[in-house]
Amino acid sequence: MAVARISEVIGSSTKGWEDAAQNALKRANKTLRGLTGIEITKMNAHIEKGKITEYRTHIKITFILEE
Amino acid sequence: MAVARISEVIGSSTKGWEDAAQNALKRANKTLRGLTGIEITKMNAHIEKGKITEYRTHIKITFILEE
Amino acid sequence: MAVARISEVIGSSTKGWEDAAQNALKRANKTLRGLTGIEITKMNAHIEKGKITEYRTHIKITFILEE
Amino acid sequence: MAVARISEVIGSSTKGWEDAAQNALKRANKTLRGLTGIEITKMNAHIEKGKITEYRTHIKITFILEE
Amino acid sequence: MAVARISEVIGSSTKGWEDAAQNALKRANKTLRGLTGIEITKMNAHIEKGKITEYRTHIKITFILEE
Amino acid sequence: MAVARISEVIGSSTKGWEDAAQNALKRANKTLRGLTGIEITKMNAHIEKGKITEYRTHIKITFILEE
Amino acid sequence: MAVARISEVIGSSTKGWEDAAQNALKRANKTLRGLTGIEITKMNAHIEKGKITEYRTHIKITFILEE
Amino acid sequence: MAVARISEVIGSSTKGWEDAAQNALKRANKTLRGLTGIEITKMNAHIEKGKITEYRTHIKITFILEE
Amino acid sequence: MAVARISEVIGSSTKGWEDAAQNALKRANKTLRGLTGIEITKMNAHIEKGKITEYRTHIKITFILEE
Amino acid sequence: MAVARISEVIGSSTKGWEDAAQNALKRANKTLRGLTGIEITKMNAHIEKGKITEYRTHIKITFILEE
Amino acid sequence: MAVARISEVIGSSTKGWEDAAQNALKRANKTLRGLTGIEITKMNAHIEKGKITEYRTHIKITFILEE
Amino acid sequence: MAVARISEVIGSSTKGWEDAAQNALKRANKTLRGLTGIEITKMNAHIEKGKITEYRTHIKITFILEE
Repeated sequence: MAVARISEVIGSSTKGWEDAAQNALKRANKTLRGLTGIEITKMNAHIEKGKITEYRTHIKITFILEE
Repeated sequence: MAVARISEVIGSSTKGWEDAAQNALKRANKTLRGLTGIEITKMNAHIEKGKITEYRTHIKITFILEE
Repeated sequence: MAVARISEVIGSSTKGWEDAAQNALKRANKTLRGLTGIEITKMNAHIEKGKITEYRTHIKITFILEE
Repeated sequence: MAVARISEVIGSSTKGWEDAAQNALKRANKTLRGLTGIEITKMNAHIEKGKITEYRTHIKITFILEE
Repeated sequence: MAVARISEVIGSSTKGWEDAAQNALKRANKTLRGLTGIEITKMNAHIEKGKITEYRTHIKITFILEE
Repeated sequence: MAVARISEVIGSSTKGWEDAAQNALKRANKTLRGLTGIEITKMNAHIEKGKITEYRTHIKITFILEE
Repeated sequence: MAVARISEVIGSSTKGWEDAAQNALKRANKTLRGLTGIEITKMNAHIEKGKITEYRTHIKITFILEE
Repeated sequence: MAVARISEVIGSSTKGWEDAAQNALKRANKTLRGLTGIEITKMNAHIEKGKITEYRTHIKITFILEE
Repeated sequence: MAVARISEVIGSSTKGWEDAAQNALKRANKTLRGLTGIEITKMNAHIEKGKITEYRTHIKITFILEE
Repeated sequence: MAVARISEVIGSSTKGWEDAAQNALKRANKTLRGLTGIEITKMNAHIEKGKITEYRTHIKITFILEE
Repeated sequence: MAVARISEVIGSSTKGWEDAAQNALKRANKTLRGLTGIEITKMNAHIEKGKITEYRTHIKITFILEE
Repeated sequence: MAVARISEVIGSSTKGWEDAAQNALKRANKTLRGLTGIEITKMNAHIEKGKITEYRTHIKITFILEE
């Protein structure tokens, strides 16, 4: 039966945490196939001069390993 | 004095995690009364062909039990 | 070398969890200097008559302590 | 063989955390049968004018499901 | 979209932890519909005279709430 | 909207854990305004000659930050 | 320098959780010397006919090992 | 000295959780060398019509990196 | 009232995790009396040449201390 | 009786994690009195060109609040 | 097959956390045989007049139980 | 924007935990580029004849994924 792997990546965005998760997913699509799901594990942000300059969302990505 | 109960539900949405939480809340309103609060406990998503097809938000709902 | 401190605050909003985090950040800027980052630690909400009346986001704020 | 269920409730009291747990248990007895145990999972309190006005104890209640 | 609920139950067995999980599932089928998954959260056992007399498996059951 | 802060303090007492929490709250009232709630995070004790000589209760205090 | 050991015990009582912790401590004094502290790690209870028949407090006891 | 890496995979099976862990291990052997150990981190299952149709075991695999 | 102690042991087996737990229990019976329960806290395994050569199950054993 | 507060700070160093903890402690001494203990909660590091350029140690500092 | 036990001890030192772990290990060697490994679970310290006077390292020690 | 990945490795050393972390980092530099940070997640050790023969430090390494 199918075996999947879980990989942890961090996406970033200047717009928000949901966009940061989408960016991580876009990048994962370049090198991984068989993606089935993601889970958010952390949401943080870098701040400069009192404002968020980079939203960061940590996600765990699950993808099916090919036989 | 009042006694409350905590119930765990999972809402889903094609738009985003906040909308998924709102959907869970809407469904809870159909069968529960006396809701006082929610807490997000997990945010994950189902992926097909590299795109999120279903956002899922796990929430814990607190509601007052009637005497 | 630089020493930073971590402080935990709770922002609130009638719009959403991201806005609640922004409100917490705005308030922190009034009294703290040298902010470098935030991390979301909890997202909950107050409910009245079945609707969210107040979104609350708990964040940990890191700021550099002056020499 | 017997199957049990675990339900999470929050009791409140103006006297203390142990009394709040007892109140939660009293309420549970009204609707549940076959209770076998409880476990305290959280103890918090609401404060007004610097004094505790409501003690709250979160408990997990285990009860045997009837066949 | 669909909303699911998570319920925590404890199955028991004289044979083993996997059988205890199956017993919990069998009982859940009597009262719940739309089951989609389970997750094991705890495995313990009661011992008498140095031998396991009752295996207990705690599981979280997810089931779709009807519209 | 209102922004709150969370501060962690440890109260002590020779009588018990609940009294230790009350002592922490009394001290907090001297320097903080706008307290809205507390949560117990740890209960430990110092022992001498086999007896508890000091009960200690760790609490997280939430208080509204003034505008 | 001194080396200490940590041992986990469960005290029980028909009166309350604080008394259960005291009972565990009394028993520990019979076989251990050099006790320096305890920490509560769990509070649960056995229930019969809707009432608590046995309070149980799990504590971690620290004691200095003799040279 | 040797450096090892830890990878998280999910094995599945129609027979049980132990078999699911074995399937994950078999697949890992196809692409990884120098495996030294595994640890189970999660056991869940997919359910259809009230029965488990797919057991899933999450494992962390440790393997020595070649120089 | 009775006071119990909790001890953590690791059983091993060439057959499986449940057998490893049984082996730990057998060994505990040689030196401990009054065992009332066990809880599994970890399941891992040693691997050689791609195969599990030793299953290991960590269990917490509870036993009543004699008066 | 005495009431203590816990504050979380991050020390940094180019030498190592223990030195980073010492730097955090030195800075705390400038503004806080009555320090009684620290606990390490996280050890991480910033890397540039494959080398650690800044060790960071997160510590929780306990200090007695003056009457 | 071999069964091991895990014991939790706290070593102390005036030099540092690694030395404190070594001191705990030295003491364990006086009464235990068959030690196979240790794991650090906590690092804290006692402070007097703004300086660390005692480093404390909590370790879990694993040792094989004799047949 | 940049997307990073987190990988978990275990370094070993006969000298100490900090050296073990450095060894893990050295090995990571052979195959990974764009390293930005590490975090220690576990420190354990192998013991033979009562002495530490191998220090092991688990670290999570973050590195930027190339476009």
